[in-house]
Amino acid sequence: MQKSPLAPDTFPHLPTVAGVRFATTNSGMRYKGRDDLLFAVMDEGTTAAGVFTKNSMPGAPVDWGRKILPKGRARALVVNAGIANVFTGQAGIDTVEQTAAAAAELLQCSADEVYLASTGVIGEVVPTGKITETLPSMVDNLTEDGQAAAAEAILTTDTFAKGAAATCKIDGKIVTISGFAKGSGMIAPDMATMLAFVFTDANIPAPVLQSLLSAENEKSFNCVTVDSDTSTSDSVMLFATGAAGNAALTDASDPSLSDFRNALLTVMQDLAQQIAKDGEGASKFITVKVDGAESDTSAKTIALAIANSPLVKTAIAGEDANWGRVVMAVGKSGEKASRDKLFISICDVVIAENGAPSPTYSEDQVAPLMKGKDIPIHVNVGVGAGSAYAWTCDLTHGYIDINADYRS
Amino acid sequence: MQKSPLAPDTFPHLPTVAGVRFATTNSGMRYKGRDDLLFAVMDEGTTAAGVFTKNSMPGAPVDWGRKILPKGRARALVVNAGIANVFTGQAGIDTVEQTAAAAAELLQCSADEVYLASTGVIGEVVPTGKITETLPSMVDNLTEDGQAAAAEAILTTDTFAKGAAATCKIDGKIVTISGFAKGSGMIAPDMATMLAFVFTDANIPAPVLQSLLSAENEKSFNCVTVDSDTSTSDSVMLFATGAAGNAALTDASDPSLSDFRNALLTVMQDLAQQIAKDGEGASKFITVKVDGAESDTSAKTIALAIANSPLVKTAIAGEDANWGRVVMAVGKSGEKASRDKLFISICDVVIAENGAPSPTYSEDQVAPLMKGKDIPIHVNVGVGAGSAYAWTCDLTHGYIDINADYRS
Repeated sequence: MQKSPLAPDTFPHLPTVAGVRFATTNSGMRYKGRDDLLFAVMDEGTTAAGVFTKNSMPGAPVDWGRKILPKGRARALVVNAGIANVFTGQAGIDTVEQTAAAAAELLQCSADEVYLASTGVIGEVVPTGKITETLPSMVDNLTEDGQAAAAEAILTTDTFAKGAAATCKIDGKIVTISGFAKGSGMIAPDMATMLAFVFTDANIPAPVLQSLLSAENEKSFNCVTVDSDTSTSDSVMLFATGAAGNAALTDASDPSLSDFRNALLTVMQDLAQQIAKDGEGASKFITVKVDGAESDTSAKTIALAIANSPLVKTAIAGEDANWGRVVMAVGKSGEKASRDKLFISICDVVIAENGAPSPTYSEDQVAPLMKGKDIPIHVNVGVGAGSAYAWTCDLTHGYIDINADYRS
Repeated sequence: MQKSPLAPDTFPHLPTVAGVRFATTNSGMRYKGRDDLLFAVMDEGTTAAGVFTKNSMPGAPVDWGRKILPKGRARALVVNAGIANVFTGQAGIDTVEQTAAAAAELLQCSADEVYLASTGVIGEVVPTGKITETLPSMVDNLTEDGQAAAAEAILTTDTFAKGAAATCKIDGKIVTISGFAKGSGMIAPDMATMLAFVFTDANIPAPVLQSLLSAENEKSFNCVTVDSDTSTSDSVMLFATGAAGNAALTDASDPSLSDFRNALLTVMQDLAQQIAKDGEGASKFITVKVDGAESDTSAKTIALAIANSPLVKTAIAGEDANWGRVVMAVGKSGEKASRDKLFISICDVVIAENGAPSPTYSEDQVAPLMKGKDIPIHVNVGVGAGSAYAWTCDLTHGYIDINADYRS
């Protein structure tokens, strides 16, 4: 698979996070010539937060994660790529329980401190032995420097590995946040979109960590859509080892956490945007900004209606500033919008204002800009102060190629 | 544009409907070498019913139709193809009012008996003179035999003209129902999908006609989706001239109307299915049947989630019975469904039952059937007695070709 033209030039340097080590290998399960199994081990005392798919047919690993999350403790994360362990009935549950037990035995921890994720084909049973019999040999290879390899090992149809990091301070202590993600199809919000794992050495109790993750998730992964389809496996997890040694805070809204919160959002938005940039077949990165809506929620619904419209996305693939389709998408969202005040700009060229084509607009202004890789669309719907954004990519022949032929 | 491989071999014979005459011509507005303007004239006493788009950015012709519909009388229908008269501000309103006035003057009727529809590009102003100055010359060419030409004149990206007809009896009188439709992109339910005009010589008061149209629309045009996008112009209209001479009935649920109701549904379903068969780029016709749902409404939401899933549609384009994506789509619908009772068949081959792959299933069974043009998908979600269906087409390179290049 050719690398997305929207991929960053290089994978970013990800700083190590004290207390987290990674090992990867090839499990022999599906892919050849690449690692497809990740074993991440966290020091004792690590807290955990997670957001999972809202799809009502979740995979067994998602069920497992939901079940153990209330404990809020993590010692390990095991991820396999190639088979999603979704719709596998009792066999899928067995895979999950046996994998968690195997990791727990190796680490001398409790099985409910072992998080799992699987991504790939739905409906196939995971050959559990390929995981449980491989994990022991991975223990010796665990390294704090393993994030880049980890980011590679979890990929499926992705064309590039996705990483992001930031540092910040909590109460004077320097804290690192570092993570990676995968996802390029079956991406839609409505939940934690795709797989993303973020690690920090901050000392943060699990309930606070969960509040922070849920809040920033709304402004990052839940703003991405590739094709409106909602995966059965999507999980975003945040692990905090506490090695930074900051004093624990018990309230997520504590001002001492504002720097951390901003840094977390930066990392999560960066990862989320990389997913849109690796959208299956993507040739353009589209940022939809909606304001003037009745509420932020309404603005987000409108932004996603635009970002999910096949007609808008194919027009952009064709480098056509077909703003009429933006009007259509605003209208189909079902949200309140003023036809007579509607404002639309594409690539910062004002195309429509006061509900009609702008008198100053000519297609010659925007046509050369549509050839670029970044396409911003701004819509003001003229009824209030709500605003939101969504990130997506165009809909091209590449999407059809990839998805009409995924399993063969 | 190559004709859809799903097109019927020939346009059906449409019987004349007493009291309705058609003329078509080229307006010089946009298309060359084909008619793009339809003038249909109905005898005095014709009643009218309509269902319009739920898009909140409707075109001026839709606003006009909604405004005059309470009168329930029709003498004329004027349709132009090529420019949609949407998002055109005051100019669009002027076009509508001037067109209705011009037709009314020719027919010596009231302007609020003239229905209008426009389809094509959004945001361009209709050169009204091309319509108003052309209508007078069309009057001499009005003919009861003009339906086939009418069905052609309203097309845009369609690859074939769509017609359907049926006869039935009301109180012993033979009644004819005949209609035509257009639409192949920006098709989604949530309302009267695309343009469809159905004519009958039945004698039916407007309120009864409206009840019948609304009810059958739910089971026909509102079951079609091509790309989930909701047009700003969609209109389904039903006109009844009364020439059949049956006694008027004042209650839509009158048993005397059941034959008419069935015939109307047959015509509307036929036209609706033809629209899916002419879905932009379509190579397969997909019928999604959902039962076992909490309610009929819930079943329809699930059916449409499957029918709108780009991943399901691309898999079928690739002749891949990728039922895992059907599971995903059921789950993303947000409706109640039992993962452990889920049943899925594709092309009548049972693939999943009781929440897991069927023990008797092998891909060899379904693979040859996926090469056919008709792909039925049946899902039972195992929680109740609600059922519904949806019709759609696959998502192919053709869709991208058409929509990435529509305006050029």
